[in-house]
Amino acid sequence: MTNLHGPRHVVVTSIERAPLTTVDALAPIGTATVHEAIGRRGYLGADIRPIQVGAKVAGTAVTALCHPGDNGMIHAAVEQCGDGDVLVVATTAPSTHGAFGDLLATSVLARGVRGLVIDAGVRDTADLRAMGFPVWTRHVSCQGTVKNTPGSVNVPILVGEQLVQPGDVICADDDGVVVVARSDADWALEQSQARLDKEAGTRARLEAGELGLDIYGLRDALTAMGVEWVETLEG
Amino acid sequence: MTNLHGPRHVVVTSIERAPLTTVDALAPIGTATVHEAIGRRGYLGADIRPIQVGAKVAGTAVTALCHPGDNGMIHAAVEQCGDGDVLVVATTAPSTHGAFGDLLATSVLARGVRGLVIDAGVRDTADLRAMGFPVWTRHVSCQGTVKNTPGSVNVPILVGEQLVQPGDVICADDDGVVVVARSDADWALEQSQARLDKEAGTRARLEAGELGLDIYGLRDALTAMGVEWVETLEG
Amino acid sequence: MTNLHGPRHVVVTSIERAPLTTVDALAPIGTATVHEAIGRRGYLGADIRPIQVGAKVAGTAVTALCHPGDNGMIHAAVEQCGDGDVLVVATTAPSTHGAFGDLLATSVLARGVRGLVIDAGVRDTADLRAMGFPVWTRHVSCQGTVKNTPGSVNVPILVGEQLVQPGDVICADDDGVVVVARSDADWALEQSQARLDKEAGTRARLEAGELGLDIYGLRDALTAMGVEWVETLEG
Amino acid sequence: MTNLHGPRHVVVTSIERAPLTTVDALAPIGTATVHEAIGRRGYLGADIRPIQVGAKVAGTAVTALCHPGDNGMIHAAVEQCGDGDVLVVATTAPSTHGAFGDLLATSVLARGVRGLVIDAGVRDTADLRAMGFPVWTRHVSCQGTVKNTPGSVNVPILVGEQLVQPGDVICADDDGVVVVARSDADWALEQSQARLDKEAGTRARLEAGELGLDIYGLRDALTAMGVEWVETLEG
Amino acid sequence: MTNLHGPRHVVVTSIERAPLTTVDALAPIGTATVHEAIGRRGYLGADIRPIQVGAKVAGTAVTALCHPGDNGMIHAAVEQCGDGDVLVVATTAPSTHGAFGDLLATSVLARGVRGLVIDAGVRDTADLRAMGFPVWTRHVSCQGTVKNTPGSVNVPILVGEQLVQPGDVICADDDGVVVVARSDADWALEQSQARLDKEAGTRARLEAGELGLDIYGLRDALTAMGVEWVETLEG
Amino acid sequence: MTNLHGPRHVVVTSIERAPLTTVDALAPIGTATVHEAIGRRGYLGADIRPIQVGAKVAGTAVTALCHPGDNGMIHAAVEQCGDGDVLVVATTAPSTHGAFGDLLATSVLARGVRGLVIDAGVRDTADLRAMGFPVWTRHVSCQGTVKNTPGSVNVPILVGEQLVQPGDVICADDDGVVVVARSDADWALEQSQARLDKEAGTRARLEAGELGLDIYGLRDALTAMGVEWVETLEG
Repeated sequence: MTNLHGPRHVVVTSIERAPLTTVDALAPIGTATVHEAIGRRGYLGADIRPIQVGAKVAGTAVTALCHPGDNGMIHAAVEQCGDGDVLVVATTAPSTHGAFGDLLATSVLARGVRGLVIDAGVRDTADLRAMGFPVWTRHVSCQGTVKNTPGSVNVPILVGEQLVQPGDVICADDDGVVVVARSDADWALEQSQARLDKEAGTRARLEAGELGLDIYGLRDALTAMGVEWVETLEG
Repeated sequence: MTNLHGPRHVVVTSIERAPLTTVDALAPIGTATVHEAIGRRGYLGADIRPIQVGAKVAGTAVTALCHPGDNGMIHAAVEQCGDGDVLVVATTAPSTHGAFGDLLATSVLARGVRGLVIDAGVRDTADLRAMGFPVWTRHVSCQGTVKNTPGSVNVPILVGEQLVQPGDVICADDDGVVVVARSDADWALEQSQARLDKEAGTRARLEAGELGLDIYGLRDALTAMGVEWVETLEG
Repeated sequence: MTNLHGPRHVVVTSIERAPLTTVDALAPIGTATVHEAIGRRGYLGADIRPIQVGAKVAGTAVTALCHPGDNGMIHAAVEQCGDGDVLVVATTAPSTHGAFGDLLATSVLARGVRGLVIDAGVRDTADLRAMGFPVWTRHVSCQGTVKNTPGSVNVPILVGEQLVQPGDVICADDDGVVVVARSDADWALEQSQARLDKEAGTRARLEAGELGLDIYGLRDALTAMGVEWVETLEG
Repeated sequence: MTNLHGPRHVVVTSIERAPLTTVDALAPIGTATVHEAIGRRGYLGADIRPIQVGAKVAGTAVTALCHPGDNGMIHAAVEQCGDGDVLVVATTAPSTHGAFGDLLATSVLARGVRGLVIDAGVRDTADLRAMGFPVWTRHVSCQGTVKNTPGSVNVPILVGEQLVQPGDVICADDDGVVVVARSDADWALEQSQARLDKEAGTRARLEAGELGLDIYGLRDALTAMGVEWVETLEG
Repeated sequence: MTNLHGPRHVVVTSIERAPLTTVDALAPIGTATVHEAIGRRGYLGADIRPIQVGAKVAGTAVTALCHPGDNGMIHAAVEQCGDGDVLVVATTAPSTHGAFGDLLATSVLARGVRGLVIDAGVRDTADLRAMGFPVWTRHVSCQGTVKNTPGSVNVPILVGEQLVQPGDVICADDDGVVVVARSDADWALEQSQARLDKEAGTRARLEAGELGLDIYGLRDALTAMGVEWVETLEG
Repeated sequence: MTNLHGPRHVVVTSIERAPLTTVDALAPIGTATVHEAIGRRGYLGADIRPIQVGAKVAGTAVTALCHPGDNGMIHAAVEQCGDGDVLVVATTAPSTHGAFGDLLATSVLARGVRGLVIDAGVRDTADLRAMGFPVWTRHVSCQGTVKNTPGSVNVPILVGEQLVQPGDVICADDDGVVVVARSDADWALEQSQARLDKEAGTRARLEAGELGLDIYGLRDALTAMGVEWVETLEG
């Protein structure tokens, strides 16, 4: 929401992106693990939802900041998009408009874009699903937009409850969207892989019937917090 | 929300409907195109959502206006429904109740009704999907209703963010619901078909890699609005 | 929301559960019918939604009451869970955190738990669906939790818009979640079966084209309420 | 929300207004009474709130329909405003922007406008209160607007949950805003005055300790509905 | 929301109330202190707001459970009200209606009622403030109600996020509403007074410039949690 | 929402603040003017509301980032506060808790703090108003907090819809809260004063009856956008 960078309207044409090999390695890991691994950071919040089930992608952010009900800057952003990017769109105030539909999806797919994250609305959702173009959005709305008011491309933006900078890594799946700062990408991958390994071990123990209470040493911890085990509520 | 027509409670038994041939031709076009074609009008808003994926219908509106938590007037509306209709229900104040379920769906399906649009709630959603009866609703709730308070049938109503008059065309798909005034139906079909043609041309150009920036003449327009292309944010 | 039982933090280890034969008989009936049959009671409200389509389960409630963003007590609750249970989680104030994910699902599945109802959030939703572990939740969020603040297990809790006591029957399907008090379980089953029989008769009559207006004697009732049948709104 | 009148952008310069003597007589009556008197109609809904306490006005509607975040058409509407009017503003999609502030208030006060009803946002609220210019709004926001996208003036609009036509009577007080159709104005006044008389009688009886149960004949009515008076819940 | 007590509609005429001397002693203490003192319980939640500034009352609960948009049972509840009571109203599903206005306030004031808590809406708010009758409500709406559907009086109800039983103590002020179980009333008063004493001591130390960090021993506690004091974020 | 700075929990003890003379000069200007003057930036959004009427303050931000329902880090932040500061609090996920009350207000007032901005809740609102300590908050709730989970102080945080950095200028009044980046403070003051001068001129012209349509050259602009002036809607 609202511009962070200053009063000018700019299209930034040269941005540094997180390395695509790292991005590709982060993609299958899943947002919950990545989010946890990097210190419980980067989640765009529970209101940016997928319009499809089962998509799992990662890409580098190209950002667009638009006036509500106006998608002119999305068209300017498309030109900045390339292979491996995820287009990330915010508006300067809350907006429900369907600012992106099948025509724009056609255009960005032709440029190798992997998906859309938008803190506003999309339309043509049946077509978008049929095209296999994954979208995470706050709203679905068939109400279209105009192209009358300037904005910016590839500036830092607030999307949902997070700050997204151009070139950051966007990870998205059924749980929502997580952003990883470009400079944290390699570290995030390491941390995530370490967490995956650790979780695999925990999962095996849980499947065998061990309890989290014991694995995490919670019995003593909860007792120390004042929790009592009693037979009945009166007990 | 709330009655527009006056303090009487009426069931209007004779309404004029949009021609079914026009309605049938509008059905496959999709709400986003129709909405755009008629001047960005008629969208019921982003909160009236489908309970199924992939349904796409058009029909003529039979309207019911109910007290919250009371579906007596829906039963009165059923009798007014016929082949090609879509039942459109509003309440006089916000209501989450499941005012419509599998029994009412059985009843309206027997009369040729094509779907339900309701600014309240529905229940038995698994059954409704299994019956192939498409529904667009604000809420899903298993809480049922009583039949104690009067309302009206086939009066103008506000549904979501729109005015719906009996006999209007209701177009509904995964993007939501659009209403087309009965007297605009033929014009809306023409406009929509013209738009489809135009979009087909644009889609081909975008697939070929042309940019919306160029197709819509946006480079100059954005520059005139003050947008600058810069290499970096500092640039 | 918030504790009902008093200022102590307890894990109640011995609870009485509704008989599993009754629970199993209630499972296929569906929440809308059960809710209606017991006097329109027990619905947790329209904001506790399934993350999957088509699941239909019943089980006995094991309850956990947690601090927002803290799932320590869910681990304590797991130990209290056994075959046929549904884990029911509330927080002491609104929370969007994903307090339950695939590891906890692995753990409770190993103990015969049939599903989760949570008035907070879950994560790893793609995994949960793949595991066939059904979940009803207010939020989906990949933001995880800590284990620092005490709560209680198997105390009465408010979930959504209802009171749930340990051992109560939880019925859940695509319409949401209904709770049946443990002591009402057998009566609820009888009432639900009676209602199913009655609905079957009504359904047959509606399929044959009879109207609810006639079946429910609504013509006279609506007229008595002041509803008039008129040819046109002016008429 | 959204335009009802068609795809053109127009400023309608000649509208018929409800008679100002009627409007002035409606002002002191209060929205709750007027709403009730005309058949429980015309309420804009519980989300259009006053920014001040204690204002009570009535006026004739001059309407403006704006793009979100754009107040150009409010300026066009000002020219259409005259003595006794209330400016009524809607946007074509939800908008939180502060589209109206102390400068516009200065302008409309100079033309005899009695207040503002806006289904978007206002700013400079401290100044507006100091100026004695009453406002009913959905949002307060200091975020301003642009003047780039066309809309219309003096067309029918949906505001909150109601249809407002140019020239209709707007009644507003601490309970919110009620619209009375221009052609109903005189009848609405009669009905309201009759209701005031009736309420005065009821009030006197209630003050003397009589009960609504008796005054409205509710004892028998509730009993007929199945309500039982019992000493205890078990009784 | 929704009835907890069973399918019957009852008016319970004989309830036990918390002792009025205790209630009167709780009134000036304030909800935040009482809530804290009894173990952080009983808060009805942040959405039940006062319509006035500065009121601070306590009373014994007389409860009414109504169908949305129907206040018949409020009239039945009035007869059960007496000196020192607070009327507490819930609906069986969410409702915005103004179910209570100046006439009902006149009636309950004549019976010694100290205020209203309603999980629905009120109207005539200017009059209610002028009468000095304090109200805590979810909505303000001038839309009135009918009297067609049964409900219950003096049954346990869910209001906001809490369970309220007839005869419980209701404490309400600018922070909202707290319920204290009838049987806890004397204990709650003791606990609250102890807390007031303790807070007075803490306040004096804070005024003198001591820090909560030191008073509550938080320096070590935070360090043990992993908090580091650093000169700069990079440091 | 959520931490931006990394996985460590830190209290940053040395921050650079905007110059207090600039801050003091910004205070009386008002958020709407400042927001507009710096390019429509910095507004925390329409959901962070004042609990009082008429307060107008500016100060330098000391930030705290807390776990939901946990105010331990607010106590750590108090120690970092000094004369001219405004305490700005966010939580790592949405929270309604009253994390700040009269005791903390006593403590920060003793240190010269000018107000509180909190994206969570406060309690003791009657006391806070009586103390003359101004607060802008998302929620009012008497539900208190624990001190069990670490967070950070004087790190960049997202509050409402904005990024706030320690030492930034916080301007707050009845319209809400605007943040000005520390390095922009002097420029913001210049821009705001220029805007005030310009607005004074415009106000005088509007008071004299000139129209915004003419002052802003909107007649031609709107016509160029396709707006037509017509006598009637049919015209």
